[in-house]
Formats: sequence, structure tokens, C-alpha cells
Amino acid sequence: MIESNFSTIVKQFNVVFLDSYGVLKNHNGLIEGVNETLHFIREQGLTLRVLTNDASRSREQQVMVFEKLGLHGLDKEEIITSGMLAKQFLDLKIKDGKIAYLGTDNSADYILESGLEHIPVREIDLEDVDDISAFVFLDDEGFNWNDDLNKTVNLLRRKNMPVIVANSDRYYPVSKSDVSIATGALAKLVEDMLKRKFIHFGKPDSQMFVYAFDHINESGSYKRDEILMVGDTLTTDILGGNKFGLKTMLVLSGNTRREKTDLWINSTGIIPDYISESIVT
Amino acid sequence: MIESNFSTIVKQFNVVFLDSYGVLKNHNGLIEGVNETLHFIREQGLTLRVLTNDASRSREQQVMVFEKLGLHGLDKEEIITSGMLAKQFLDLKIKDGKIAYLGTDNSADYILESGLEHIPVREIDLEDVDDISAFVFLDDEGFNWNDDLNKTVNLLRRKNMPVIVANSDRYYPVSKSDVSIATGALAKLVEDMLKRKFIHFGKPDSQMFVYAFDHINESGSYKRDEILMVGDTLTTDILGGNKFGLKTMLVLSGNTRREKTDLWINSTGIIPDYISESIVT
Amino acid sequence: MIESNFSTIVKQFNVVFLDSYGVLKNHNGLIEGVNETLHFIREQGLTLRVLTNDASRSREQQVMVFEKLGLHGLDKEEIITSGMLAKQFLDLKIKDGKIAYLGTDNSADYILESGLEHIPVREIDLEDVDDISAFVFLDDEGFNWNDDLNKTVNLLRRKNMPVIVANSDRYYPVSKSDVSIATGALAKLVEDMLKRKFIHFGKPDSQMFVYAFDHINESGSYKRDEILMVGDTLTTDILGGNKFGLKTMLVLSGNTRREKTDLWINSTGIIPDYISESIVT
Amino acid sequence: MIESNFSTIVKQFNVVFLDSYGVLKNHNGLIEGVNETLHFIREQGLTLRVLTNDASRSREQQVMVFEKLGLHGLDKEEIITSGMLAKQFLDLKIKDGKIAYLGTDNSADYILESGLEHIPVREIDLEDVDDISAFVFLDDEGFNWNDDLNKTVNLLRRKNMPVIVANSDRYYPVSKSDVSIATGALAKLVEDMLKRKFIHFGKPDSQMFVYAFDHINESGSYKRDEILMVGDTLTTDILGGNKFGLKTMLVLSGNTRREKTDLWINSTGIIPDYISESIVT
Repeated sequence: MIESNFSTIVKQFNVVFLDSYGVLKNHNGLIEGVNETLHFIREQGLTLRVLTNDASRSREQQVMVFEKLGLHGLDKEEIITSGMLAKQFLDLKIKDGKIAYLGTDNSADYILESGLEHIPVREIDLEDVDDISAFVFLDDEGFNWNDDLNKTVNLLRRKNMPVIVANSDRYYPVSKSDVSIATGALAKLVEDMLKRKFIHFGKPDSQMFVYAFDHINESGSYKRDEILMVGDTLTTDILGGNKFGLKTMLVLSGNTRREKTDLWINSTGIIPDYISESIVT
Repeated sequence: MIESNFSTIVKQFNVVFLDSYGVLKNHNGLIEGVNETLHFIREQGLTLRVLTNDASRSREQQVMVFEKLGLHGLDKEEIITSGMLAKQFLDLKIKDGKIAYLGTDNSADYILESGLEHIPVREIDLEDVDDISAFVFLDDEGFNWNDDLNKTVNLLRRKNMPVIVANSDRYYPVSKSDVSIATGALAKLVEDMLKRKFIHFGKPDSQMFVYAFDHINESGSYKRDEILMVGDTLTTDILGGNKFGLKTMLVLSGNTRREKTDLWINSTGIIPDYISESIVT
Repeated sequence: MIESNFSTIVKQFNVVFLDSYGVLKNHNGLIEGVNETLHFIREQGLTLRVLTNDASRSREQQVMVFEKLGLHGLDKEEIITSGMLAKQFLDLKIKDGKIAYLGTDNSADYILESGLEHIPVREIDLEDVDDISAFVFLDDEGFNWNDDLNKTVNLLRRKNMPVIVANSDRYYPVSKSDVSIATGALAKLVEDMLKRKFIHFGKPDSQMFVYAFDHINESGSYKRDEILMVGDTLTTDILGGNKFGLKTMLVLSGNTRREKTDLWINSTGIIPDYISESIVT
Repeated sequence: MIESNFSTIVKQFNVVFLDSYGVLKNHNGLIEGVNETLHFIREQGLTLRVLTNDASRSREQQVMVFEKLGLHGLDKEEIITSGMLAKQFLDLKIKDGKIAYLGTDNSADYILESGLEHIPVREIDLEDVDDISAFVFLDDEGFNWNDDLNKTVNLLRRKNMPVIVANSDRYYPVSKSDVSIATGALAKLVEDMLKRKFIHFGKPDSQMFVYAFDHINESGSYKRDEILMVGDTLTTDILGGNKFGLKTMLVLSGNTRREKTDLWINSTGIIPDYISESIVT
């Protein structure tokens, strides 16, 4: 592990993958100075991708949210969301029927736009489930947990079908001290009830990195050792980056605080190649 | 394993412990003939206890529910609920402060009647948690899961306190095909979020059997080999009974259907001493 | 949590339950001053029991080991081992056949002395398993793991039988820095292979405390609030004591070091009533 | 799910990925007729890869083993083992120090040939671990479990380093009725002891499929929907293939027997696109 500045280290690479929450923004909004960092990345001629487990918004919407926070100049082509992996899976594997989902209608519209009909759990009639061919956990919002989690359990007891989880995060921060239960934790509740494992997309799973790697190589020719993965979370960003063979940098501007860093690295055994205060250094 | 009639086997014992759901009643209501079985148990001079993981009602209320279903002559002293264990724990270990809970106000009233103040999660102010001294998962009903599960996670992140689960069941049947997510599964969701294990009461935990055993020995002098435990669920009734050293009987009038019996016994490794169609045989 | 001296606190109780490793002894041998503490306990007229998850030795052998280390005056009747619970289970539930085991012949001799024949795994002929009626994990020593763990998996795949784990500890300390894999971890490996849960005895399970509680009440009349449980491990001694409704004291002379105490209490949520440097205070 | 013949289905694809055990061979040796099937695959002009979680042998050795069993004409370039992924990871991420391992010296020689020194656990001096930079679980053979698993636990307690598992399978069949504990289960034992998760390679992980996909595209230009993945195990071959977006075929010539097929598909929720008796149909 080398403690250093982001700007010093990133020059040694040709591509940089950035996590979103904890790297570009946190519960206070945009991290001060990231516009300058983005400018520096452009100046250095680096290829950039933002890898996020947020499946609730399309790439266009992600860019708009960043704009509103004050981050300018991100291109939608530079955003990779776990929702895109879910969409790729559905396109490849589900050819007919309706796709049932838990989440907001907005998240459903963009992930499930592939032509197949989709239906929120609250509108499903459990006595008539023959035409439902797949199930997607999209978001923790947009539905009543009491009603729709129970209905989901019974739907999946009645009919066997592929179930995918578009965001495997268990929680997300909502303020300095508080978190919110995320889709991954709700999916885990249902998995435990059914004693099944669903198909999860998002970091640390390799498929997120594969997708981003293929994406940059559509218009380039990069090897894995040319890429730096930067994130604030050991168990998603750093674990996933390491496993895919990338060099990894842990930043301390999000979930991992300075005073916990050594403890967490030792207890998880997940070791970043670099540590930096933030990307604004 | 011996396949036999309940009435033939039970005569060899002096005490009978009965699970409630699946033994006395099921999703159709009272199991036909249990009034006669209760009469037979009385006639034989057997000591009876009903052991239930239902913590949502007091013993008096349990008896009233049975009366409404048509089962007559159960005494409230014959009912042992996992809620009574939760109450015993709180009485012994929590001496001051307020007890926070998730569940119906009715369940709170009877479990938390011990003198300490109690407060539902929805009424807690997260900025003022100093006087909250313990937390209880009582029931899956009586609160909004979206709001109050998130609030619970943040309460327990802010303040460390004993957390107990008054009913560790993960689900309960609501009709022939459907189930409902139970308290134990909601508690597990929160445990997973916090990476902690709470204190669970109810079968298969030994403490339920200890409580019932001590209870019958207040007015008697019984040994473990004089007791037959009867239940419909391998992983709670039979596992718990076996571990406590009791002879166990699996009945097929509830969660375990005849055609699944061998499969489940082999895959769980939980072996009842006896199998019977129901207690009405 | 109250930080205090053992001698000050223990006077408020009539019974004291002590863990063995980390309380009376550690990897350096006997903790200096425990002879005086034992004398003080006698002087105060307190009833004493030592509760240990070590199932490899009989009570007589445990007393001899303490004598050799220099602790004098422990009576074998004051020792409660998890092996005694295993023995109780086998006596109550296994009435014929042979009991297969993993462990030393010494541990087998004392736990399985009940009259039933017992056979080490290495001597079992997998083609002839009809008369084997139960299986016990006794100890991590006394057998070749490569051969006998594989043989155990295949024995239990071929024949369904009750499997008990006489010591559920996952590891034990062997020096200041090193540990040794214990029976509980080997049993867990086999459980994972078979996707089954065996019957585990030992702290933190309530049954250990029930056994000790019944034991002191054979010749006395004690209530739970008269007992202090003292141990060095949150997840066994303190968790188990708390759940059984006892007052608990964490001592820092074994597995839990001063500088980790707050961290571990917060991350596990297991809160002792008292903390003391050791029982020699 | 469509029940059909392998030969009918495979014609609709341009690439076929075959699992090894249960598809080409089983505990009886080579499955009768696979030479003809291989011939048919060649005739159809299909691109072939064999994907195996066996990390104990190099590609050359795998081909030799197939030759000895009687399968002729496999090219070493057509074999993808999880050991190759482990090697890729080590090449990309570990640049200095020694690599410690558990496994046969043969498996170490081929996986760890990358220039870095490697050392079996039995030769490590726990007082001198500064130069050990990574740890690999290679194979379940080649070492004494009693000694070296304990030593591994203590090595990893003393020094934090990347730990990789070259074969995540928990067991492998050794005869019609018996299995052998595999590397993945031993690694899990150590993970449980340390409360850490290691980096696992092999099916069902996506990285195995990515590797094979990249491999065929070095000399071709294939899309995912041109590939059929064939395997005998739902939880590795079919789950992994499905998740990567491939069409999948379950064959009944290995771990999954006809009479268990429906039960296992329903309980795991892993649904193959096709089912066939074997690839010799």
C-alpha cells in the first residue's frame, strides 16, 4: 500500500474508473474540487468511466443529477450503471412474457425498455401469473414494503423464474450518521425466505468491470494494467477492482474514514494498492 | 422412526407438549377432532402445555382465539409463548430506561407491562435516544416497514443496546399456498445490515423448552423422558425437542406434507422418534 | 456497563460461574493470584461452578490439569463441561447401536461410557454402517483430518443419524499470537458440505447454563439474579449469560484485550454488565 | 426449458463450452460416445472450449489425462481451467515476494511459474513471514490438513495479504456414492476462522466465462448469443452461464440425476434453457 496523491498516481495510468458516491459526491453534495479534477483528467488525456451500483436512474438522468449538484462535463457515455448489466441480461435471456419488478416506475422504464412488457408487483394478480417470465429488484423506493415484499415471496413460491437484483448494495448513506436500507438487503430478505440465491449485478461482481472494460475497448485498445480503479468502499470498489486485476486506490472521502482504514483493511483482507485522501489531491 | 397413532404413543408418557399451528389448527381453522383429543389427554391424566412462537398475543388472548375457533377447555396456564421468554429476559436484565419496539401496541402492552416505559419506533426521535435501553422485535404487524425498519437500523447504529427477537420464526402460513414474512425475517434483515446477532427467543432454542419444563415442575416432578413433544415442523419443534432430550413426534397436519417427509428428514438430518398423521388418530 | 473489581462485585451475588480459559488460566499457564481468589470465593460462602466448552477431558481430568498448573482445591463437582451435555443427550436419545466419533480415545471413553459401544471413524467400514446410530464430534485431536473428515462426510451421506458437536468452539488459543482450529470449525466444514445443521453443545447455548443452574439447585435454592457469570469472551460467556438472564462480567485476562473492548462490544452488540481487569482484583 | 438432444440443439450455435466432469467423463471414466460427439462438433465447424474448475493440472496435463481415458483430439488451447485465472491474477497483481500455497507441488509449478518464488505452507517459518506476499489455495491434496490448515490460519493472522482460491468447488465425486472434500471447502474453513472472504476463481463466477469468451475472440468474432454452455451442475455451470448471458444446457450424465432435476431446479431457481440426457444424444 502506498499513501499518495490521486494526481501523482493517476498519471501512471491511461484509464481511470471512478466510483460515484464517496468519490465524486457524498451526503454533503459534490466534493469540493472535483470539477478541477475532472479537468485534470481530461488534460492528461485519460479515458474515464464512472461505475455506479445505482440502478434507479438512466445514464442521462445520472448526468443531469451531477449537473444539478454542480459537476459539469460528464458525458452519458462515461457512465456505467449496474442497471445496464441487468438490462443486458434481460435482453439476452428473456425473450417473452412480462417482467415483474419492485422499484420506481422510472427505474422500470429505462431498464425494461427492451420491448418486453413490465408490471409492478402491486398490479400482479397472484392467481394469474402464467405470463410472468422474470423478476427484477430495481430499487428500494416506489412500493409499499409490507404489501409488496410479501406478495413477491408468494409470487416466487408459486412460479419459478429468473430473479435478478439490479443493485446488490445493502445500504446507502443518507446523512453523516444515517443510512437507508437498499435493494440488495430487500432481495436478501426474499432469498433467505426462499432459500435461493438470485442473480446479482453490480460491484464487486466482475461483470461490472468486464462491462466497463469492453466499453472502453470499443473505441480503444487498453490492457488491464493501464487502468486505475478508485473507490471509497473496500468490499465493492477495491475488492472488485483487485479481483479483475486492476490497480486500486482507496479514497477517504466517503464510507471509509481515516481512523478506520487500517482496521478494516486488516479485518477484511482487502488491500488497495494506493490510499489517497480524495481525488482532489 | 416409528409410524404410529398419536393416541397409542402418548399413553407411554406423562406429559405432552403440543405446538399450536399445524397441530391444533391450520389455515382452515381448527383441525377436526382436536376437542376429542384434548378430552382424551385429560382422561389419561396427562399434563399438557402448548408451546407457541406467537408473541403477538397474551396467554389470555391465545385462549380466546382458540375458543373462537371452537377449541374449548384450554387453560391459560397451559400456554407457553416465546413472548413470555422475552418478558422474562427484560424483567431480569433491563432495569431502567425505555424499551423501543416494532409490533402492534397490543403485543407491546402484554410483553412490556413490567413497569418500564415502552415506545414504538415511529414515535422515537433519533436525536434523543439516551433513555432508550433495549429494543424488541415483537411482531411483523402494526408498523410501516419502509419507515420503521430504516429508523430501527439508524437507532441501533446510533446507540448500542440489547436487542431481542420475541418470535424467531421467519414466516407463517396464511393460506394453503401462501405465507407471510414474520418477525424473525425482519430481525434478520436488520442483523445483516448491522452485522450483529440479536437475542432470539422461541423454538428451536432450548430456552423455550426449559421454560416449559420448569413450568410443569412448579407443581409436579417430571423427568425429560416422561415428555412427548409434538409438532409439524422439523426445524423448530422436532429439532428443539430432540436437543432438549425429549422424545419427539412429527405430525403431518401442518407445514410438513406426507410426500415431503422423507426428503426433508434426510436433507435436514432432523429425525423425529415418531410420525403420525395428526393428533386426531 | 460498570468498570469495577471482581472482588467488589462478586460480593453482591450468591453464586459465581467462571469460564476456564482466560479467567483461571491462559496461554502462560495459571493466572497469578487465582488461588487467592478461589480462597476469597470460599470465604464469602459463594457457590462456584466452572463452565467450560472443553469436551476432551472428564471432570476428574480437568481437576488434575488445574492441580498440575498449580490451582488447588477445585472439586470435580464444581466443573461443568459441554461434554456432559453431549453425554446427557446421548443417554436420553440414543438407545441402541454404535456411536461413531471423531476425537481422542480418551474423550470417547468418558463421554461415551454410557454402555453403548463406540467406534472411531478410522475403524468404520463404510460398506457396513447399519448399526451406527449416532455421530459425535468430540475433539480436534486424535485423528487424521485428511482421511477421517472425508470418511465422515461419506458416512453421513450414506446414513442419516443424529450428529452432535460436543464443543462448538471454532478455535482455541495456543500461544500469545497463535490459535488452533477447534472441533466446532471442523463440524462446520462437514455441515457446509452436507447443508445440514448439527446439534451443538456448549456456551453460548442456553443448555450449558440450564445444566449448571439445575446442578446448583440440586443442593440449593438459587434464582437467576443471584448468579454472576464471568468470562473473557463476548460471543460465548457474555452472550450466553445475558440470554439466560444472568448478570455478566467481562474480564480482560484472556481473548479480549483492553484496547479492543469497546470496538468489540459495539460491533457485536453484546454488552456485559461489568468489566474487570481479571478475577484477581 | 426444452428437453431435447444435444446434437439437435448445438447446431443452432457457433460455439460450445463444455464442463469436463459429468459431461465428458464421470466416476466410471470416459462417457461412452464422446469421441463421436467431439467428431460431430468438429464436423459442424463449432468452436469448442472445455471449462473446468480443476486447478491441479496444467492444460497439457489435462489433455494427457483425457488421452489416457480414451478421448482423442482435444487441443490444449481448448482447455480453460480456473487455475489459469489464478495465474492471471497473480501476474497482474503480485509483483514481488514469495507466494505461499496449499496443494501439490505439481499444481504449484504450473500456476506459480510466473517468475515469483513459491513456498509450500509446510516449509514456512512463522517467525519469518515478511517476504510472503500472497497466498493460494491450489488443491486439497499434497499436504497434511491437521498441520498445514492450522499453520495457514496463523500465517494469515500474522500477516495480511491477498488470498486466492484457485478452485472454489466444495467437493468432487470419487465414486458413484462418495465424494471428496475439495479446496473450496478447506478455504471456506479458513475464511470462517478469520471472518474474511478470499478471492475465488472458477465457475459460477463470471470471470471464468469472460476468460473463455475473450479467448475465443482472440481468433474470432463471437457474440454471447452464439454460445451454448453445457454442464451437469446447476449451481456452477448453469448459474454461471445464465448470468453471463449464455444459453445453457443441463446434462444428466453427472451430478444431477433425472429424478432430482425438477426438485433442484425449483429449489435453486436456476433454470437451464435446455435439458439433455448427455452430449451423446
